[in-house]
Amino acid sequence: MKFKLPETPAVVVTSKSFRLADVDPADITPFKHQPDDKQEASPRLLKLRQRLSELQELLYAEHSRNLLIVLQAMDTGGKDGAIQNLLTGVNPAGVQVATFKAPTSEELKHDFLWRVHAQTPKKGHIGVFNRSHYEDVLITRVHGMIDEKTCEQHYADINNFEQLLLNNGTRILKFFLHISKEEQARRLQARLDDPTKNWKFDPNDLKERAYWDDYQAAYQEALRRCSPPDAPWFVIPANHKWGRDLAITEIVVAALEDMNPQPPQPDFDVKAQVIK
Amino acid sequence: MKFKLPETPAVVVTSKSFRLADVDPADITPFKHQPDDKQEASPRLLKLRQRLSELQELLYAEHSRNLLIVLQAMDTGGKDGAIQNLLTGVNPAGVQVATFKAPTSEELKHDFLWRVHAQTPKKGHIGVFNRSHYEDVLITRVHGMIDEKTCEQHYADINNFEQLLLNNGTRILKFFLHISKEEQARRLQARLDDPTKNWKFDPNDLKERAYWDDYQAAYQEALRRCSPPDAPWFVIPANHKWGRDLAITEIVVAALEDMNPQPPQPDFDVKAQVIK
Repeated sequence: MKFKLPETPAVVVTSKSFRLADVDPADITPFKHQPDDKQEASPRLLKLRQRLSELQELLYAEHSRNLLIVLQAMDTGGKDGAIQNLLTGVNPAGVQVATFKAPTSEELKHDFLWRVHAQTPKKGHIGVFNRSHYEDVLITRVHGMIDEKTCEQHYADINNFEQLLLNNGTRILKFFLHISKEEQARRLQARLDDPTKNWKFDPNDLKERAYWDDYQAAYQEALRRCSPPDAPWFVIPANHKWGRDLAITEIVVAALEDMNPQPPQPDFDVKAQVIK
Repeated sequence: MKFKLPETPAVVVTSKSFRLADVDPADITPFKHQPDDKQEASPRLLKLRQRLSELQELLYAEHSRNLLIVLQAMDTGGKDGAIQNLLTGVNPAGVQVATFKAPTSEELKHDFLWRVHAQTPKKGHIGVFNRSHYEDVLITRVHGMIDEKTCEQHYADINNFEQLLLNNGTRILKFFLHISKEEQARRLQARLDDPTKNWKFDPNDLKERAYWDDYQAAYQEALRRCSPPDAPWFVIPANHKWGRDLAITEIVVAALEDMNPQPPQPDFDVKAQVIK
C-alpha cells in the first residue's frame, strides 16, 4: 500500500500464495488491551471517529478525489454493522452507500460492471459498497453459473475497472470481513432464538452455508487475483465485532490521512466581504 | 397531525393565517433545563437516538411503508448539521439522503417534480431531502423566475404529489429550520474569520441575503399553502443548534412510534431450522 498501515489484526493480501486459512478470524492481537466483550465505543474509536469526520469534510471541500470502500463477507459476517459503525457521526451528505443484491432483469441486460460503475462515488464523496462486483466471481463461481474461462476474464475486467477508478482520483479500500464457520452458526442461531430477529433469518442461508469451503476457496482466489499494490484486499478478523470495527476505522482514517485532502483556496477576496 | 406531538419549541403550521414572524428563532422554552451552549449530546438525545435506531430497523424489517423528511432553511440555516445529527447511529443501509441543487439541463427538460419523484425513499427506508421541490416556490418566486399563476399551480402540484406519496405508504415530515437574520450574519462571518471554513463561504450568499424579507414571505406563503393535516410544516427554531437537533429528533421518533412498524412473521418454521 501507498500508506503506512496502523497496527491492527488486519492482513493485507500481497501475494498470489496468500492463504485465507492462515488468518485467525478471532485475532485481536494488537488490540488485546481491550476487553473481549467490549460493547461500548472505546476512547480510541471515539478519537478516530472525530478525525474521520474532519477528514471527510476536507475531502468534500477539496472536491477532486474520492474514497471507495468495498465490503464483502460470508452471510452474517457483519457488513451492515461495520458500515453503520464506520459512518457514525460522518456527514451523510458526503457519503453514498450502495447495496448490491441479486441483479435485476434490467441489470442482467448489461455487462456485470455496468450497475457497479453507476454507483461509484462522486468527487469529494466516500462511497461504500455493501457487496460488490466481487459477487460475480464468488456466488457465480461456487454455483457453477460461470465457467473457469469467464471467471478469468472477470478477474481481469475487475482489475482493469479498478485501475480506471484509481487513475481518476479514487482511493480504493477493500475489506473482507473474515468470520469462522462456528461464529456463523452462533449468529444464525441467535436469529432463530430471538423472535424479534427472526425476520433476519433466511432458510436459504443454510443452503449457502453448506458451500462454506467452496466460498472460502472462491474468496481466497479472488483476493489473490485482485490485489494490485494500489488496491489490495484487507482481511479483517471479524469474529469480534468491536475488533472488526476498530480495525476498519483505523485503516480508513490512515488512508484519508495519507490522501491529505486540502480545501480549495477561496476564489474571492475574503477581506473584502462585508455582511450587512 | 395524526400523532401526539412531543414537547418541543417547534410550531406546526395549521392555518392559512400562520405568521413566520411570530416564531422566535431562538426559542428553547420546553428545553430550558438545558444549558444554552450545550455542545455535547444530552442524555435525552442519546436516548432518542437509541430508540430511532431500533425504530428504523423495524421500519426496514416491515418493508411496506417509509418516511420522508424534508429540510428547508435559509443559507447557513443548518440543514447539513441537522441531517448529520439526526442520522448519527442510524443504519445507513436504510437511509437515502438526496441533496437538491440548481437543476441540471437534463432535469430542466422535465416538470419540476420529476427529479424529486426519482429520489423518493424505497419501502422500509427513511428518505431525507436536503432542499426539495419547495425551492420551486422559493428561489424562483423571489427572483421572479415564475409568475403568480405558475406559483399557484406549483402549490397545487406539490400538494397533489405529496398526497400521492401519503396514499402509498409514505409518512412525510417537513422541517423549516428557522434562524434570525442576525444569526445568519454571525454564521457567515464565522466562515470568513476561520480560514479552514472559507470554502463554505459563497459571495453569492450575500446577494441572496439582501432578499431576506422576500424569502421570509415566500417561505411563509409556501408553509401556509402546503400544510395539509397529514403533512404540515414544522417550523424549528434553529438559532441554537442543539435545540434544533433535539426538536427534530423528538418529532421523528414520535412519528415513527406512531407508525409502529412491525417485523413480518417468518414464512418458514423457525423450530424446524437446524444449523449444521
